[in-house]
Amino acid sequence: MTDDREHLAADAIRVLAMDAVEAANSGHPGMPMGMADIAAVLWGRFLRVDPGDPEWPDRDRFVISNGHGSMLLYAVLHLSGFPITMEDLRNFRQWGYPTAGHPEIEQARGIETTTGPLGQGFANGVGMAIAETHLRDKFGSDLVDHRIFGFVSDGDLMEGVASEAASLAGHLGLGRIVYFYDDNGISLVGPTSWSFSDDVPKRFDSYGWQTATIDGHDRGAIADAIETAIADERPTLISCKTHIGFGSPNVQDTAAAHGQPLGFAETELVRKALGWPYEPFVVPAEVYEFFSTAMERGSAARSAWEARRLLAVADSSKARLWDAHFDSPAVSLEVPEIDPGSSVATRNVSGTVLQQLSELAPALIGGAADLASSTSTLLSSSTDFSVKERAGRNLRFGVREHAMGAIVNGITVHGGLRAYGATFLIFSDYMRGAVRLSALMGVPSIWVWTHDSIFLGQDGPTHQPIEHLAALRAMPNLWVVRPGTPAEVAGAWQLAINRTDGPTALILTRQGLLVPETDTTPELTAQGGYVVRDGHEVVLVTTGSELPLALAAADLLEGEGRAPRVVSMPCVEAFLTQSLEYREDVLGDGLPTVSLEAGATFGWPAITGENALNIGINHYGASAPAEVLADRFGFTPEAVAFQIEAWLSHR
Amino acid sequence: MTDDREHLAADAIRVLAMDAVEAANSGHPGMPMGMADIAAVLWGRFLRVDPGDPEWPDRDRFVISNGHGSMLLYAVLHLSGFPITMEDLRNFRQWGYPTAGHPEIEQARGIETTTGPLGQGFANGVGMAIAETHLRDKFGSDLVDHRIFGFVSDGDLMEGVASEAASLAGHLGLGRIVYFYDDNGISLVGPTSWSFSDDVPKRFDSYGWQTATIDGHDRGAIADAIETAIADERPTLISCKTHIGFGSPNVQDTAAAHGQPLGFAETELVRKALGWPYEPFVVPAEVYEFFSTAMERGSAARSAWEARRLLAVADSSKARLWDAHFDSPAVSLEVPEIDPGSSVATRNVSGTVLQQLSELAPALIGGAADLASSTSTLLSSSTDFSVKERAGRNLRFGVREHAMGAIVNGITVHGGLRAYGATFLIFSDYMRGAVRLSALMGVPSIWVWTHDSIFLGQDGPTHQPIEHLAALRAMPNLWVVRPGTPAEVAGAWQLAINRTDGPTALILTRQGLLVPETDTTPELTAQGGYVVRDGHEVVLVTTGSELPLALAAADLLEGEGRAPRVVSMPCVEAFLTQSLEYREDVLGDGLPTVSLEAGATFGWPAITGENALNIGINHYGASAPAEVLADRFGFTPEAVAFQIEAWLSHR
Repeated sequence: MTDDREHLAADAIRVLAMDAVEAANSGHPGMPMGMADIAAVLWGRFLRVDPGDPEWPDRDRFVISNGHGSMLLYAVLHLSGFPITMEDLRNFRQWGYPTAGHPEIEQARGIETTTGPLGQGFANGVGMAIAETHLRDKFGSDLVDHRIFGFVSDGDLMEGVASEAASLAGHLGLGRIVYFYDDNGISLVGPTSWSFSDDVPKRFDSYGWQTATIDGHDRGAIADAIETAIADERPTLISCKTHIGFGSPNVQDTAAAHGQPLGFAETELVRKALGWPYEPFVVPAEVYEFFSTAMERGSAARSAWEARRLLAVADSSKARLWDAHFDSPAVSLEVPEIDPGSSVATRNVSGTVLQQLSELAPALIGGAADLASSTSTLLSSSTDFSVKERAGRNLRFGVREHAMGAIVNGITVHGGLRAYGATFLIFSDYMRGAVRLSALMGVPSIWVWTHDSIFLGQDGPTHQPIEHLAALRAMPNLWVVRPGTPAEVAGAWQLAINRTDGPTALILTRQGLLVPETDTTPELTAQGGYVVRDGHEVVLVTTGSELPLALAAADLLEGEGRAPRVVSMPCVEAFLTQSLEYREDVLGDGLPTVSLEAGATFGWPAITGENALNIGINHYGASAPAEVLADRFGFTPEAVAFQIEAWLSHR
Repeated sequence: MTDDREHLAADAIRVLAMDAVEAANSGHPGMPMGMADIAAVLWGRFLRVDPGDPEWPDRDRFVISNGHGSMLLYAVLHLSGFPITMEDLRNFRQWGYPTAGHPEIEQARGIETTTGPLGQGFANGVGMAIAETHLRDKFGSDLVDHRIFGFVSDGDLMEGVASEAASLAGHLGLGRIVYFYDDNGISLVGPTSWSFSDDVPKRFDSYGWQTATIDGHDRGAIADAIETAIADERPTLISCKTHIGFGSPNVQDTAAAHGQPLGFAETELVRKALGWPYEPFVVPAEVYEFFSTAMERGSAARSAWEARRLLAVADSSKARLWDAHFDSPAVSLEVPEIDPGSSVATRNVSGTVLQQLSELAPALIGGAADLASSTSTLLSSSTDFSVKERAGRNLRFGVREHAMGAIVNGITVHGGLRAYGATFLIFSDYMRGAVRLSALMGVPSIWVWTHDSIFLGQDGPTHQPIEHLAALRAMPNLWVVRPGTPAEVAGAWQLAINRTDGPTALILTRQGLLVPETDTTPELTAQGGYVVRDGHEVVLVTTGSELPLALAAADLLEGEGRAPRVVSMPCVEAFLTQSLEYREDVLGDGLPTVSLEAGATFGWPAITGENALNIGINHYGASAPAEVLADRFGFTPEAVAFQIEAWLSHR
């Protein structure tokens, strides 16, 4: 069923995008002008969203992975009645307006996720599809039954993160994915052919996707391809041959259309070419009516869904299950009982805590990048999420760290689930693009990174983190928790699962740690830093695996007549949110202070302040057993005590 | 021509690997046991290397991207007479031996590059192939005519960095690449089928590669596939069906073979199964003879090559060209003349300097990840490196930052060229895995990162670096240079091109900077930090785009009767290598100190010490014009002067 107003709707998107970029004198008109027909058909005929309740859980998700084309999204949201006003469009890319250069997540306005760094939206959508598929299995298609529609560019397809995510989506048979590839032959700098000659359909076929190739300006063909995609059990990539900057006589099909205003004269020519008689930011009523009609489809669907949901939650067990997924109740964890004096790796304590958490939080789902056993992140009470087993809560990401990060973000922003992704700390580098987006978006993705220092030993420098703790702590809004005792491990997970406004990283050891005879609790952990052994002469501030070391060094210092205090600081970020009074109490305002951590000292002076000694390792490690490295690099109680004593006596 | 000793050679590799892992009680026996037949055929019949001159420039390159199988490399190097002794094999993964858990670059021993983090070696090889192809065009196949042979795993193929590199290698028709895919169906954690179902040959076909599928234990088939690969103009992926842990009755074909010792009892069973009667670390003479014969091929080739090279460099212009590529002469750059008081972006100054450098250093090659114009990194005197134009020095990496990083590393470790890779600073996150390897290897890759702060403006928070300078400075051996004047830009490039023992990052602005009336020179830049305006009351330490801001704020402070000093610190790492006396001279030992940088303050306290104010931005930015952001976030001369004055008067 074609609506005569559909072509007007497409032109409205084109012209709004062009004019907003012109007004901002900054932005990317090419993609919105090229993909407007696809957007008009998708929003007009298929997408089920409801501007009356933008966050309705069973809505279809619309993601533009080519986020530089943000004006397409803002235009279509505005025309459809989401809270994006014409004033917002006029103030594209201006301070204080929701119409940022690249989409910034704000689901209450219909912006599903933050995109712009290429490939991320592609992989976010894969995470959303995992969430949908898993929740549909859990709650039934009465309550969960939606699709993920995405716009992707050649840039997205060149990025490794998208390749990884595409491969996994094919493997997992995520048929709810329908992506439109904007095959316009132009990248930022020039013709795509300068650097890209993949046979894209063949490539996606090799991943197990359904593919189609169409004229991206033929609205009938677009609709047919969507119908076919919906009927197919595989994820679908529709390659759409489009003209970047469609409608612009002089700029269409050139790189000049990609990322800069067309210029006023050219916008006039576009108006002429399209037969668009309206002034900038004036849209004829038929266009609003077109979208309004389309939105009725979503609105009706939402009403029907709401009725079904009320019926379903009349069953109290189903109501509890629903709330456990969509209300994020706070979780309190018990500390695994492990005898002081025994030795245990924090990754293994974490594994134990995770089993407990998986019972308390049925919304928990996650996995590792081929390191489930090494990171102790397999939920033993569940199965693998697979084509055959949609109820599985263990995600086998394969050796795809970056996609794992973006997929965990996608699950998290989808809602209804709490997701974690695990690998070795060294490979946080591989997924940093995604980790940053979790922090920027302020969403509570959980990162589990084990093998957290040179003490992983013989795998050697390629696998030994040095600068990673510093590099992660430098990232705003990411909380980095490095626990050193079983109670701190439980506290770390409790902090992560109860956090709502940003991601948490758990940093865990490969090697066993001596469980100390100290009073540590999850609550103390949540304070970020606290005194584990009091003393009035010198303060040792330490984290994770160096806590037992600091305590042993403190024993030696005490033997030499010193009165050392030991402060455990599993989470610097949490500590910095405490009152100044508390912080000074813990750090012993003015006492000589030593930081001790098996990583770069970069960043510690901000905590230890004046009058400090920072013990760490500011060079790469070596391949040898952990105890040899401890000896060579000065991480024995004797070496630490000696260094502190020498420093104290020469100050 | 089959050598009867070939199967013995393969078994020798298997057993040495197995026994070394057993002795270390740590390591990965599965890959070497599974790929030993391929190694025996490749080294025995094809590879042209010379243990008498391991660094011979025209040698074939052998890369194991699946670096956890390092014992295969060490075994074959030992057997072939490279400087890896039996003692080194006995001490696999021990302190002080060259036989690290994962291969650490040491070309004098035959270890071409550092691998282990998956996908890196795959992409390094693509860089090596670019280098070979370009240099062959430049010097002729008399002097440059070799191949890149690589071993890759399913893990490599799952990593995005390898996907990116494969796509580019296909696009560029890098026919000198011959990779063997160890298709053993097993990953670290279990069957590959848990997370990977790509049709690999089809996928590589879609990239433009030649592909073959063979039995990886059929030595005749291996040889035939190599012959076919050599005859083909495309890069080749040979999918080899292998048995991980081949020869082990109980562990073969299981994940248990991947990453742990077999156990003594099983090693005995392997000996029985293979009919290998020798004790651990005992190898029969026939095996040494087999490899010795094979090495004669490389040795003869090297002698012939040396003769041709001597003939060629009898021509003095060719000798000069050769030396310019293989002797890395020091370069001195002139400062572009730009009037003080005018405004220029450091990325544009860099573009000007780069043209000069490209004339002075014909070995320079590089490019950007689809951002050549934005990063000003196109060499205007050259062309694009492409299938048709091998002389081109401009590399069009496409939107593939991670592969760009690993490819630049590959070109650099290949030798004969100096390579750079450019993108926006924000996307240093995407390529961090490769950047770290350049720093760990201590090789002089050059990274150019522009759009270096919130002042890129309207693209918004997804594109605005905050924590990146800190995260990069935390990385050992990476030098981060953020110039603020034309002289400092020239100095930055001079520092980068003359560095030999590690990578250098150039951090450049998108926005124009006022060119100050100060004496800055490339030589001062190389000192890392220096006084640009003297004063005795307070020290402003600043970098890059905040240098003009600091100078303007200093003017205001002077107007209020203060005597501020301004220190430009374009390279913290270089500054820290200066004498304590110099550093105290510059920083005015004991003076109140302010750091001013439009990024996270994390890390600055280590420089500013006690008694400091750190002005920066420790949260994400916003999408608005740069001048609005400067105003809102306190980066105007007035706001900076006010903040310093308030701090000084309340200390």
